[in-house]
Amino acid sequence: MKCDRLFYNGIIYNTAFRKFFRGFLAVTGDKVVYTGAGEKPEDVEAAETVDLEGRAVVPGLIDVHMHIESSMLTPRAYADEAVRHGVTTVVSEPHEIANVAGVPGVKAMIEAGKGAAIDIFYGIPSCVPSTSRRLETAGAEIGVPELLELLKCPEVKCLGEVMNTRSVLDEPDGKANRLIRAFLENAPGLPAEGHVPRIVGEELARYMMSGVDSDHTEHTLDELAARWFNGFCVQIQEKTLKQEVVDYLCRNSLYDNTCFVTDDAMADEMLKNGILDHILRKAMSLGMPPEQALYCCTMTPALRMRLWDRGELRPNKKADFVVLDDVETFDVHSTYKNGVRAFLKGDPYVNEVDCSAFSGELYDSVKLKHLFESDFALRTEREGIVTCRVARVFPDRTQTAETEMKLEAKDGEILFEGAGICSFAVFERYGINGNRARGLVSGSVIRRGAVATTYSHDSHNLCVLGCSKADMAAAANTVISMKGGMAVVEDGNVIASAAMPIGGILTDRSASRFAEEIGDVTRALRYLGYEHEDPIMSLCVLALPVSPYLKFSDVGIIDVTRQTLVDLVK
Amino acid sequence: MKCDRLFYNGIIYNTAFRKFFRGFLAVTGDKVVYTGAGEKPEDVEAAETVDLEGRAVVPGLIDVHMHIESSMLTPRAYADEAVRHGVTTVVSEPHEIANVAGVPGVKAMIEAGKGAAIDIFYGIPSCVPSTSRRLETAGAEIGVPELLELLKCPEVKCLGEVMNTRSVLDEPDGKANRLIRAFLENAPGLPAEGHVPRIVGEELARYMMSGVDSDHTEHTLDELAARWFNGFCVQIQEKTLKQEVVDYLCRNSLYDNTCFVTDDAMADEMLKNGILDHILRKAMSLGMPPEQALYCCTMTPALRMRLWDRGELRPNKKADFVVLDDVETFDVHSTYKNGVRAFLKGDPYVNEVDCSAFSGELYDSVKLKHLFESDFALRTEREGIVTCRVARVFPDRTQTAETEMKLEAKDGEILFEGAGICSFAVFERYGINGNRARGLVSGSVIRRGAVATTYSHDSHNLCVLGCSKADMAAAANTVISMKGGMAVVEDGNVIASAAMPIGGILTDRSASRFAEEIGDVTRALRYLGYEHEDPIMSLCVLALPVSPYLKFSDVGIIDVTRQTLVDLVK
Repeated sequence: MKCDRLFYNGIIYNTAFRKFFRGFLAVTGDKVVYTGAGEKPEDVEAAETVDLEGRAVVPGLIDVHMHIESSMLTPRAYADEAVRHGVTTVVSEPHEIANVAGVPGVKAMIEAGKGAAIDIFYGIPSCVPSTSRRLETAGAEIGVPELLELLKCPEVKCLGEVMNTRSVLDEPDGKANRLIRAFLENAPGLPAEGHVPRIVGEELARYMMSGVDSDHTEHTLDELAARWFNGFCVQIQEKTLKQEVVDYLCRNSLYDNTCFVTDDAMADEMLKNGILDHILRKAMSLGMPPEQALYCCTMTPALRMRLWDRGELRPNKKADFVVLDDVETFDVHSTYKNGVRAFLKGDPYVNEVDCSAFSGELYDSVKLKHLFESDFALRTEREGIVTCRVARVFPDRTQTAETEMKLEAKDGEILFEGAGICSFAVFERYGINGNRARGLVSGSVIRRGAVATTYSHDSHNLCVLGCSKADMAAAANTVISMKGGMAVVEDGNVIASAAMPIGGILTDRSASRFAEEIGDVTRALRYLGYEHEDPIMSLCVLALPVSPYLKFSDVGIIDVTRQTLVDLVK
Repeated sequence: MKCDRLFYNGIIYNTAFRKFFRGFLAVTGDKVVYTGAGEKPEDVEAAETVDLEGRAVVPGLIDVHMHIESSMLTPRAYADEAVRHGVTTVVSEPHEIANVAGVPGVKAMIEAGKGAAIDIFYGIPSCVPSTSRRLETAGAEIGVPELLELLKCPEVKCLGEVMNTRSVLDEPDGKANRLIRAFLENAPGLPAEGHVPRIVGEELARYMMSGVDSDHTEHTLDELAARWFNGFCVQIQEKTLKQEVVDYLCRNSLYDNTCFVTDDAMADEMLKNGILDHILRKAMSLGMPPEQALYCCTMTPALRMRLWDRGELRPNKKADFVVLDDVETFDVHSTYKNGVRAFLKGDPYVNEVDCSAFSGELYDSVKLKHLFESDFALRTEREGIVTCRVARVFPDRTQTAETEMKLEAKDGEILFEGAGICSFAVFERYGINGNRARGLVSGSVIRRGAVATTYSHDSHNLCVLGCSKADMAAAANTVISMKGGMAVVEDGNVIASAAMPIGGILTDRSASRFAEEIGDVTRALRYLGYEHEDPIMSLCVLALPVSPYLKFSDVGIIDVTRQTLVDLVK
């Protein structure tokens, strides 16, 4: 046999045996053409030979539940970093860009991922907007017609996470079930992905009758066990990966029903900890056999997403593989994509990103004019001491609690400055209705200054959190002038900022460059007193009206449990 | 939850855990809606409850490599018997009916399977005829246009076994590769099934590059190991299932890459030994854990054929299951198909078969007129002693050997009667060209009388084997008058016969009734001296020009290795 490249003297991972064999791997074009145990084979005539020097070779990692937008990077920038971590395929769920720009936004992401260093597939976002027009204004909506339009894209591999669990259970003809049915009827065989917090037993069974049968949300071991028992594709993210989970998974050999996934990873976290490689390392460090942990990052995800051309290294499969200096620490020596080396240890970071797939319209998505201090006043018709509804933020979670606080109302305005509390303002920014809403936030947030962001789940309106109206206006205007992004202001000075000019949610920079900017924003938030394990995440879900318990949208203050609007003043 | 039927107090097989749990199973319509461990659940309101009395419940067995025509039964008759064995789904490869009647024949099979007791899916036959028109005349041919036509049928789940291994390897643009490419391009994601005897190493890798990646042929352990290593879906039939194979399979946990399959089973064997249940029992008796053996008959085959709606018992999957009185002997208490009981131990055999799906044309496929003794003369222009080419039959295989024998030629005829040898005659029977060919057979075949059959792989022309021209004519005429089938004659008397009026290869009777007839034929052949573990199989492949080494077709005597015609007289 003739081949392009023969890799020999390696320890090759064999997926069927889930074992490493001393052997070789022959590649022609983008495919593996021959693999076997033993020395350099004599029946192969290779244009190029590569001595692996005893290194291990494993299939490229496949991440089937993640959101590229969580990194705030473009698909290409994400891919440039991902390949350094041995990730060669992802299935991204693009509900953030869909909230901003609908089908054209998702198509722009697909287009922007073409020619990237890794293969990027997509799920069709099923919950855009996260609630309804009654409670929030997103830039676009995904209904059945939009779903059918996106299904025409060959890059679409699944229905993205169906987040409205209650609607799936309680509204047989609600939007969630209509989307699921339209998907399963028109894409038979493709998976419908879930987001199924907490429920077990009879409710879990009823949920499964919708056809959705995966879940990546955080769980207790009992909840996970119920999902495995029911044949779910259990997608484990880093925070779910605990010792008892690994022990249970291994004791019961549930590898065929388990994928590791990243869900959300910011650019600085990617560079610092890694992505899927980080979770894989953690699994191995918790005692999972590398051969099984690798299976959960390669074969199980490939089968889940019906990616028949990859996931294992054998003839006729994609030559996507990772050469490792060490298996247990997943120390990447080099990554091959489509048979070609895409990364070698020591390669410098890629600094330039081609963003040409994104149109002028996506670069002009923040349709807001200059704001003034007066735009941040908490208007009221009341006078004197008023009891206000306040969302309390905690340092260890994204859920808030509803509390209250007495404040003085004077000259048509509730005075919050200097009262040890923040105001939170949301400005509809798509030019749809000009909605503006105001609220109050206490707890572990900033103690001075202000922060503004157009990256705010899921509607991505302009959100401003601050202790001072002047700083809030300054932060907001900085973001507006950047055409989107984040800005942190103290005493009128911008102390950190990260531009996200693409749809107001993506940077046009590389991962390494953006990691510095977004790291600066995190540090600035901490400097202003924000106490949270992830201050940006905490900030960005204050406007997510499906995240308990008291949140904000451009329409107003939302009691998430009741899915109703409530007043600021009680 | 409300449900149609609640089965409780059972030991339910859970596929994800590959374990039995004491629990319950709730069914509504044709689906499982809820399953769990423990007692009768309180949150279920069932229209009917069924106490399983501690019995085990497993998913219905799925057989992904078999040929319904090998049973000589119609799809419905096959299904009536299969359900008694706990088989609820099969994927049949209909190359026999395709050789007889092409696409209309396959469509008639599909039609005839609708409403059967089990679900019957199909592969598209890829080697019709088995060789080419130069070497044999079949009733029809399957090329790319026919493949594309069959792909429109939703019952099609794969490309049927690609038997021309050498062509796949050596003729990049040969018919085999053209069919494979047309299939993979037009049915992305569906599997292409193989038939890959012997080859290993670099040739096996090159074979896989075609996209075919399963194999059900008989193998040594080393050959099987090579297929597992290469990620094949290894389909193990009864004769391959040896102690060392089971030991290796279990030691290396290769269950995800292993299906059990029946390939060929005649009606009497089905009744006597079983089908997939027989192989499953054998695997367990050889020490395979029942939980893994069951997986190889349920989940692995479901995944292989992308039958996403079945293979495991969990919410939203088909309620196809088997209640067992004993797991290790697979002692079927009852079989449920689509949530409804389709068999209960003690149920009488079904005796009537609806054959209305088969048209008048398929009932008139043997287009031959009455034959005379003179039609069975071995014509020659030579006189005196001639050296003839003879196919020698062995009792333990279907391969023949080429030998020679000196016979007397007189009055334009080679005299074989009384010479301790059989003549073999093939009559093209589709009214295409009227071909007739003659040859000689020695070895472990009949020692007197004659047998005729229109069931003869793969072209199914009329084949007659006999020691006497008169008996040969009598057997042939009996078969012609039955519009197809088999007849055994001794001294002018028909001592056994089995009519197969549908396409000349299928009975219109039930499995139990036909089993008696076909059993009689086997016994009659043995009585006439045929020494073979399966005399009918031995007889029916004498006209298969891909089976080594010397075989016959309507065109002449074939040197299988060289794929050329050879003369009777040397």
